[in-house]
Amino acid sequence: MTNQIRVVLAGPRGKMGLEALQLIEKTDSFELVAVIDYKYGGSKLNDIQSVVQNNVHVYETFEECMNSEKFDVLLDLTNPEVGKKHAFMALNNKIRTVIGTTGFSSAELEELKELARSNETGCIIAPNFAIGAILMMKFSAMAAKYFQDIEILELHHDQKLDAPSGTALKTAEMIKGARVPKQQGHPNEIETIEGARGANVEGMRIHSIRLPGLVAHQQVMFGGEGQVLTIKHDSMNRGSFMSGVKVSIETVMKLDELVYGLENIME
Amino acid sequence: MTNQIRVVLAGPRGKMGLEALQLIEKTDSFELVAVIDYKYGGSKLNDIQSVVQNNVHVYETFEECMNSEKFDVLLDLTNPEVGKKHAFMALNNKIRTVIGTTGFSSAELEELKELARSNETGCIIAPNFAIGAILMMKFSAMAAKYFQDIEILELHHDQKLDAPSGTALKTAEMIKGARVPKQQGHPNEIETIEGARGANVEGMRIHSIRLPGLVAHQQVMFGGEGQVLTIKHDSMNRGSFMSGVKVSIETVMKLDELVYGLENIME
Amino acid sequence: MTNQIRVVLAGPRGKMGLEALQLIEKTDSFELVAVIDYKYGGSKLNDIQSVVQNNVHVYETFEECMNSEKFDVLLDLTNPEVGKKHAFMALNNKIRTVIGTTGFSSAELEELKELARSNETGCIIAPNFAIGAILMMKFSAMAAKYFQDIEILELHHDQKLDAPSGTALKTAEMIKGARVPKQQGHPNEIETIEGARGANVEGMRIHSIRLPGLVAHQQVMFGGEGQVLTIKHDSMNRGSFMSGVKVSIETVMKLDELVYGLENIME
Amino acid sequence: MTNQIRVVLAGPRGKMGLEALQLIEKTDSFELVAVIDYKYGGSKLNDIQSVVQNNVHVYETFEECMNSEKFDVLLDLTNPEVGKKHAFMALNNKIRTVIGTTGFSSAELEELKELARSNETGCIIAPNFAIGAILMMKFSAMAAKYFQDIEILELHHDQKLDAPSGTALKTAEMIKGARVPKQQGHPNEIETIEGARGANVEGMRIHSIRLPGLVAHQQVMFGGEGQVLTIKHDSMNRGSFMSGVKVSIETVMKLDELVYGLENIME
Repeated sequence: MTNQIRVVLAGPRGKMGLEALQLIEKTDSFELVAVIDYKYGGSKLNDIQSVVQNNVHVYETFEECMNSEKFDVLLDLTNPEVGKKHAFMALNNKIRTVIGTTGFSSAELEELKELARSNETGCIIAPNFAIGAILMMKFSAMAAKYFQDIEILELHHDQKLDAPSGTALKTAEMIKGARVPKQQGHPNEIETIEGARGANVEGMRIHSIRLPGLVAHQQVMFGGEGQVLTIKHDSMNRGSFMSGVKVSIETVMKLDELVYGLENIME
Repeated sequence: MTNQIRVVLAGPRGKMGLEALQLIEKTDSFELVAVIDYKYGGSKLNDIQSVVQNNVHVYETFEECMNSEKFDVLLDLTNPEVGKKHAFMALNNKIRTVIGTTGFSSAELEELKELARSNETGCIIAPNFAIGAILMMKFSAMAAKYFQDIEILELHHDQKLDAPSGTALKTAEMIKGARVPKQQGHPNEIETIEGARGANVEGMRIHSIRLPGLVAHQQVMFGGEGQVLTIKHDSMNRGSFMSGVKVSIETVMKLDELVYGLENIME
Repeated sequence: MTNQIRVVLAGPRGKMGLEALQLIEKTDSFELVAVIDYKYGGSKLNDIQSVVQNNVHVYETFEECMNSEKFDVLLDLTNPEVGKKHAFMALNNKIRTVIGTTGFSSAELEELKELARSNETGCIIAPNFAIGAILMMKFSAMAAKYFQDIEILELHHDQKLDAPSGTALKTAEMIKGARVPKQQGHPNEIETIEGARGANVEGMRIHSIRLPGLVAHQQVMFGGEGQVLTIKHDSMNRGSFMSGVKVSIETVMKLDELVYGLENIME
Repeated sequence: MTNQIRVVLAGPRGKMGLEALQLIEKTDSFELVAVIDYKYGGSKLNDIQSVVQNNVHVYETFEECMNSEKFDVLLDLTNPEVGKKHAFMALNNKIRTVIGTTGFSSAELEELKELARSNETGCIIAPNFAIGAILMMKFSAMAAKYFQDIEILELHHDQKLDAPSGTALKTAEMIKGARVPKQQGHPNEIETIEGARGANVEGMRIHSIRLPGLVAHQQVMFGGEGQVLTIKHDSMNRGSFMSGVKVSIETVMKLDELVYGLENIME
């Protein structure tokens, strides 16, 4: 097929990388051209993993790969440090990139945006690829224009250390931009046991539920006279990220600038 | 019909009383014999309310009513003070009673139990008539034998003053009897915003959600390896109490002792 | 206050009308100028209802009202026939209108749109004012671009005659425009009891739950690899319509054309 | 420890068997004595699996194992045919057994019950070990005494072939014993699209939802005037069965008869 998108994957042995190998394999419009793995340069893909049957070349560095292969998109699922390095190299070489990593500073993002713009090269940096979670946050920000009273419930397995979850805080942050500030609940409300009303974020409340058996879930509730609107996301396993990776690869082909966060490429 | 249960209602003008009038009217096996209303002694029922068409006599006191009418059950939906007085009078006169009120002390309950036993007269005192809520609590106590990790979410309209709700506290109390104690969540769990993990009741967590549009809801979640069991009750309006009143009237006819709490007459 | 929106209400005695009277009363930026009631022309508002204290004039017809009063918006909560008549009259007289009624034909809507455009007069016609329900449908259509597998559950009291509900059908219609067609479920799926898989609408499934105690609820579920997104709306009582009436009155003041359906004035 | 329960496991390489090996390993009060595997007689456990480190002997048959080892309970997680054979052999030899398999006929169960009784030997046969699911069914049967209107929603991944699920049918069966028969919904209810109201089982309705991303979930809803009670079970992975295996092994030690179905050993 001549109109397949040719992909190079950096980080093929990580949990996300292994999922991505399977995604590329089963997507007819994608073609895996090579992988980058700092530890196994010179091997074949089949030597270093067993989830797919594919014998493309393993390059030790992105430079080597660029010199030897022709491809459309670099998909980077490595780590913040390597991801940053790859982002700059790719844009400097006018290569489209999808980066699935956190940890960019505002200054770094600005610099990369400028680079992408001047080189007219598409780039997507996504700290979260779960499309359902992105939609939940996006819809929540939209609904907050119409409902001032909002409570966020996030439910996770009991091995999670921090409460509230990062997604809950990100959701509250996005809602804040749209919601008219309000201290919720009755003005004379009393907690007979401390903590009952949850964490107070600008008058909104966040409740963190922790139980064995749960995976990663969040529900945002909006209350108005006579009605309640609820937006809920259940994440059952890492496969949930792959739909976001797919959309990103497809979208970056049409971009000539840098976009940070999947919410900004979804209508 | 000769085998109808003949009922006298005390407190016909209160919110619960008005619901009870409708319940008795539409239940073929019940017959309303008279009502007791301290304010309107000597009137007819039709003079003091408009939800049902029924012209039975209104007595000012229970004594007068006992002297003039033949009936099977006194249904008392007045207030704690009057409810107590009626409970003692009824049992002393070997009259079966259903009392829908809170506020009895342990000593008073003991005294009434003894009275019921010696007079071999049935009596049900029920602080809560919502059968669904009673079952939720009962099932929660049963499930707590098998699941140690439990979180209670109670959701109410934002005019409610106290958090957690009385039902949530009662549920936790019932669970405590069956659950092996445990401090839930990860031992190193951290609240980055205070209150996120809710109210701590012996290691269990209670979360109080308050939103306009909500009525009165509770869900108890039990987590175990690979599974979650949830028991949920939604109360939409006061009609939810009437199924419990009906069961109580039917059951008290077969009792010759005092039972406190509907959970103890439900199998 | 000089910048209040002056409202005339047609249909003050209907269920929606009575709610609207309360809404206008408690909204500082709205002022009730008069009402139109074909039965009680010449009376005062206090003579014909008791939910608010307000003695504005009751006009028998819209013409009379236009001749005698100065106002900004006609809010029509009558019936399809009268609503249509009022819509044409209002636009012909360059009076902004919010019409809460169904039953307009496509031809009528086209004619009214043309009239609104040539007279540069705002008009909102809304078959459904429940903002939460509108958002649920709008978000569902948006999510359908990313999730092909969708099941709709609608839950109502057991006195409802038709299944599926009108809202469920409208939701499916809106989703259809965005979803890549698919016959859902396993290709070899077998119903061992007929009807188990629900109503089939272009491969999507709709399930109608009917129980006493329920009011009006809908949940739209989107499934993808490893994740489920759920959008749910609970309508507890008629008060849920009033937030939509409020937004409509505020928005129509800024419009110079006709908009059909609240989803088109919500961002 | 002298009071550990000594267990022999038949079927160590199956999905359930591998989970059971881990369960026994991490349960201090259990000790694995040997395993039975028709294919690998004479090996050591470490040779045939890698989920636990344990080098107990692998016997080809139950007879050999009985002749060579001293143990308290046989845990059989093989298949219906072998499970039956083992059940008879164990009871004939007064060995306590937990059998996790379906497919026993009523006649076979009767014969085994008689055998257990005469040999005064405990035996538990459990077609389903998920304690949460068992409790859901048990509570549903209890609630059906008080609520006549019941709808069952079962939600599974879209690779499931049959609808409704076996658990939904079993739940309906258990409810039937307690529920006063009723044709639910409005008598004049109309399906404008066939199947909307789900599968009709004696007037109750079952709805089968199928979506990628779902695992195995069921919710039973009970409706009454002004209230809804919901009992829900979410099964996320096979680990959910292990709590039931644990309870069964502990309970069978105290039994001197045969019990069919975990619901009958749970209070």
